[in-house]
Amino acid sequence: MNELELFERIRAKAGVAAGQLVVGIGDDCAVFRPKGSREDLLFTTDLMVEGVHFRKGDRPEHLGHKALARGLSDIAAMGGKPQFCLISVALPRTAQRILDRFYDGLLRLAQRTGTTLAGGDLSRSNQITFDIVVCGSAPRGKALLRSTARPGDRVWVSGPLGRAAARGYRDSPVPRLQLGKQLRGLATSCMDLSDGISIDLHRLCLASQVSAELSHIPVAPGATLENALHGGEDYELLFTAPPGNSAPSGCIQIGTILAGEAGSVTWHGNALDPRGHDHFRS
Amino acid sequence: MNELELFERIRAKAGVAAGQLVVGIGDDCAVFRPKGSREDLLFTTDLMVEGVHFRKGDRPEHLGHKALARGLSDIAAMGGKPQFCLISVALPRTAQRILDRFYDGLLRLAQRTGTTLAGGDLSRSNQITFDIVVCGSAPRGKALLRSTARPGDRVWVSGPLGRAAARGYRDSPVPRLQLGKQLRGLATSCMDLSDGISIDLHRLCLASQVSAELSHIPVAPGATLENALHGGEDYELLFTAPPGNSAPSGCIQIGTILAGEAGSVTWHGNALDPRGHDHFRS
Repeated sequence: MNELELFERIRAKAGVAAGQLVVGIGDDCAVFRPKGSREDLLFTTDLMVEGVHFRKGDRPEHLGHKALARGLSDIAAMGGKPQFCLISVALPRTAQRILDRFYDGLLRLAQRTGTTLAGGDLSRSNQITFDIVVCGSAPRGKALLRSTARPGDRVWVSGPLGRAAARGYRDSPVPRLQLGKQLRGLATSCMDLSDGISIDLHRLCLASQVSAELSHIPVAPGATLENALHGGEDYELLFTAPPGNSAPSGCIQIGTILAGEAGSVTWHGNALDPRGHDHFRS
Repeated sequence: MNELELFERIRAKAGVAAGQLVVGIGDDCAVFRPKGSREDLLFTTDLMVEGVHFRKGDRPEHLGHKALARGLSDIAAMGGKPQFCLISVALPRTAQRILDRFYDGLLRLAQRTGTTLAGGDLSRSNQITFDIVVCGSAPRGKALLRSTARPGDRVWVSGPLGRAAARGYRDSPVPRLQLGKQLRGLATSCMDLSDGISIDLHRLCLASQVSAELSHIPVAPGATLENALHGGEDYELLFTAPPGNSAPSGCIQIGTILAGEAGSVTWHGNALDPRGHDHFRS
């Protein structure tokens, strides 16, 4: 079973979102509507595991930055404003010395983005594992979803792709928070590019029950086309907008949303295999 | 550095709670106040690591139940009503088969307690690790804190202690959600007993800048005094109330809050060493 199939299975078990939970499993964030409030709250959680998402020797400050940036990117993808985060850390006793520098890296990005560290948990383990939870807010009913792209919409990305893969995933990603807020009211759908455009656009199309035709892949300097199509961790935004709209500066139009088989993505007329990062590909 | 020292250090780095975050690091839950809402939202996160919090052969349904119960117990300790949860799961590919039964156990308790599964994350790892986030709600300003015990208050627990330790931590704990809500307006402070009364009462006293004198330790059937004092995972509530108040049925008075050295706990006149569970004791 791959990750998408697994998620579908869990989603079916969990049942549909109801009551104050406006959006449940399946988007970048869950959306909760507090009673009487004019704001919706957005929630996302992201694991970061040693040997899977980072290497043993990576700088602890970089890891702290990256853990929070991953969560903030999901908030950006929904057009949200960061509010607070919780961070759980499991690590061997011998790795305790990284904690100070890990929290320094996390807190530096937290301060820059107005995110308060509100809590977390600590445990022993053999393998260093971080799990970040970020809460953001958006005006009631205005959060951007990945399930609302419509045939005829143009597909956009917020910048050239493949940079992170080309650099061996050592960069400190900058979440696109300002752009996310700008896209409210303009984009018809949005998500962040964490696992590669080939799989992430497939996910957006599946969620929206549409297909997509790509016309152009913007390749970042130093990256290969392979990096740009299937590389992860770019943390650019992928969004759709009605034709004729101009997007904010720096955004690049890459294709068109079509009716047709839900989830299918073609490029120059050929099916594009969703080969981005999948933790459970067998 | 032990876990308490580590938490203090992180708390100092994170700075004080401000703005819409009413309570930050240091209580069972963080408390967030949505704009214009009559409810406060409570957030807690709890790690569960193979070989630390559970054994390799434990039933997956039990693990799912326990992961959620740990979080719900923190919501109970604040007098909250569960709203939704997020669950992150990191595990080896060969352990994928436990997922169905894990989610079944979690969702059964979720349904019984009105908690919606709103999302989560999945990753590969060598060691099975779960991280639960639970959100609950309480009427604005009414959440129970651990930092508000006052000299002269009586100390109570919601039941006899040491049961989980005596049974080898194989029970499925039942979070004290009804009792937590009943304690709003009665208790002056509250927390849940996850790591043993010796360390948890120490923590409550530290947070409240008071000391405590224990007069009675109620030992669960089959448990030893050692289990009752230092055993973890009872998930009973520990709370304080002004003298002369009667507590809900089943609750047992165990001592008195005093002024004096913050965090110190005595029993029959002797200092009680905080020997409960500490993941970073060296």
